[in-house]
Amino acid sequence: MLKEIDHVAIAVDDFDKMVEFYSDKLQMELKKIEVVEDQGIKAAFFEIGSVKIELIAPIDEDSTVAKFLKKKGPGFHHIAYKVSDIENSIQELKEQGLEMINETPKIGANNKKIAFIHPKSTAGVLTEICQQG
Amino acid sequence: MLKEIDHVAIAVDDFDKMVEFYSDKLQMELKKIEVVEDQGIKAAFFEIGSVKIELIAPIDEDSTVAKFLKKKGPGFHHIAYKVSDIENSIQELKEQGLEMINETPKIGANNKKIAFIHPKSTAGVLTEICQQG
Repeated sequence: MLKEIDHVAIAVDDFDKMVEFYSDKLQMELKKIEVVEDQGIKAAFFEIGSVKIELIAPIDEDSTVAKFLKKKGPGFHHIAYKVSDIENSIQELKEQGLEMINETPKIGANNKKIAFIHPKSTAGVLTEICQQG
Repeated sequence: MLKEIDHVAIAVDDFDKMVEFYSDKLQMELKKIEVVEDQGIKAAFFEIGSVKIELIAPIDEDSTVAKFLKKKGPGFHHIAYKVSDIENSIQELKEQGLEMINETPKIGANNKKIAFIHPKSTAGVLTEICQQG
């Protein structure tokens, strides 16, 4: 069902500084910076092998990422797995007894269909499934 | 310098239950379970695409993972990147101003040479570099 990791998202408070850090010090390739209005975030995508590292920071005080940073500080935010048919995967996960945050897909960065599994179903790890748009 | 992601490690408190969860509910392929005495942990390795998901749990009350669970609860623990020459990478990272937890490599699971970068150098993300043994 889950094909491979699409990205690992890291919440940062100083966006510009951390984008520079991942580019210059860790020497990762910055592919794109995107504002995702719907989620109240900006995101920087770095590519490493077949996986992306996504640095995310709030552009909106009420966004879930702003609340996450206030509560937990910067650090790992979520992991995202590619699926080929997201509606079908959501159905399968629900049948397995997992609680979905999104029972119908929404549109995320890069115009992908995404849905989050509730971290209480995955031992504290916020988990996204995504399907190429 | 960093070639690709080797694994993403998740700290769990109920090891057997979570190994079953990743096998049965998320349908990931369990490759191996290993006790790493030196780090006071047991680890389960799942493969998804070119990356491994590593579930880790303490076997020793004084291990850093036991302390992590007590302080933060289950969730993301660290991310590990493959490097081809770990001694050289440690040197480069130090020259970039990063603080290493391990200035000389130690032997981790799967007999790999590993070293951790201090999370204060990476905005809260505990980061490992590893070289195939």
